Amino acid sequence: MPNSEKTAARRASIGARRNPESEAAVLKAARQLLAEKGYAGFSIEEVARRAGAGKPTIYRWWPTKADLFIAIYGIEKKAAVSLPDNGDLMRDLAQYTADLWRFWRKDPAGGTFRALIAEAQTSEAALSALRTKFLPERLDPVRSLFDRAAGRGEIPAEEVEDRLQIWLGFNWFRLLTDQIDDNDILIQRIVKLLV
Amino acid sequence: MPNSEKTAARRASIGARRNPESEAAVLKAARQLLAEKGYAGFSIEEVARRAGAGKPTIYRWWPTKADLFIAIYGIEKKAAVSLPDNGDLMRDLAQYTADLWRFWRKDPAGGTFRALIAEAQTSEAALSALRTKFLPERLDPVRSLFDRAAGRGEIPAEEVEDRLQIWLGFNWFRLLTDQIDDNDILIQRIVKLLV
Repeated sequence: MPNSEKTAARRASIGARRNPESEAAVLKAARQLLAEKGYAGFSIEEVARRAGAGKPTIYRWWPTKADLFIAIYGIEKKAAVSLPDNGDLMRDLAQYTADLWRFWRKDPAGGTFRALIAEAQTSEAALSALRTKFLPERLDPVRSLFDRAAGRGEIPAEEVEDRLQIWLGFNWFRLLTDQIDDNDILIQRIVKLLV
Repeated sequence: MPNSEKTAARRASIGARRNPESEAAVLKAARQLLAEKGYAGFSIEEVARRAGAGKPTIYRWWPTKADLFIAIYGIEKKAAVSLPDNGDLMRDLAQYTADLWRFWRKDPAGGTFRALIAEAQTSEAALSALRTKFLPERLDPVRSLFDRAAGRGEIPAEEVEDRLQIWLGFNWFRLLTDQIDDNDILIQRIVKLLV
């Protein structure tokens, strides 16, 4: 067993403890590289070089470039899209959707997310990262909007997951056909149909 | 001006008349190549070679490989997915959606459609073909289901386009995350929410 694998095994046995400074340096370098070169020019090798970090370390934390992108996307989305609480699902969801589209319109978020979805059509690793990491983590905030609405009796609790998927699908379709312009009237209409 | 361009100009001036035998030969070769090599290995050069047709002719009829794929997809979908008429939108849409997923599960339809959507994320030509050819042509049959329902008073006529997009988005999301297994119960639930 090579040394790096032994280290990995030891780390796994004591949990996924990370050095916060190294992690921040890697994420910063990855963000810069994404902004400069887009998803196609994004590679773990180049991120390691820029961050002065070892490739095995990065691969242990983020096994593919899809995983690393997902981590960055999550941080940026959290900073850009706040979770509304108007006490009304229709208003909450319209505001959240408009903020999400605004976030997607700014590079590199929307463009690289499109590239990740594209990569998932030919790479099993990217599809798996999309399904098991990206979707569960990124859907959590929106699900809380639906859950609160179910708590207020606006929608049946057992319909939350289905409505969430329908909402998500509409947004993906608009993003993937490059139709996420500032269109509050359309968003209001769609949200009304969904709620 | 080379001879092929002169011919192109003459043809354009008398309209887009096509030789049906050449067209059938090209489509047949294209279908076979798609089935063998998938979308990534699909090229107009190779289709021309196999069909014994001139490249300029093919390019005049289908300017990109996306256009040629869209033509094949349309023919195959028409043969595989029939348009139901149960006099009830919920039943019509559930049947149509289940048939569409079944069509997508069979190679090369679903896999190559996924590849076309992926290509549209980096190629403006593919995005344009998707938006201006694929979507209008392929949505027509489903729209007629919604239009008939509006005619029966099941849904308001002014909501047809929005509902169509929501239905489409949900299907794209399931296809792009490889979740189009045989699941009548899910389809029934979603269609109920959409109708």
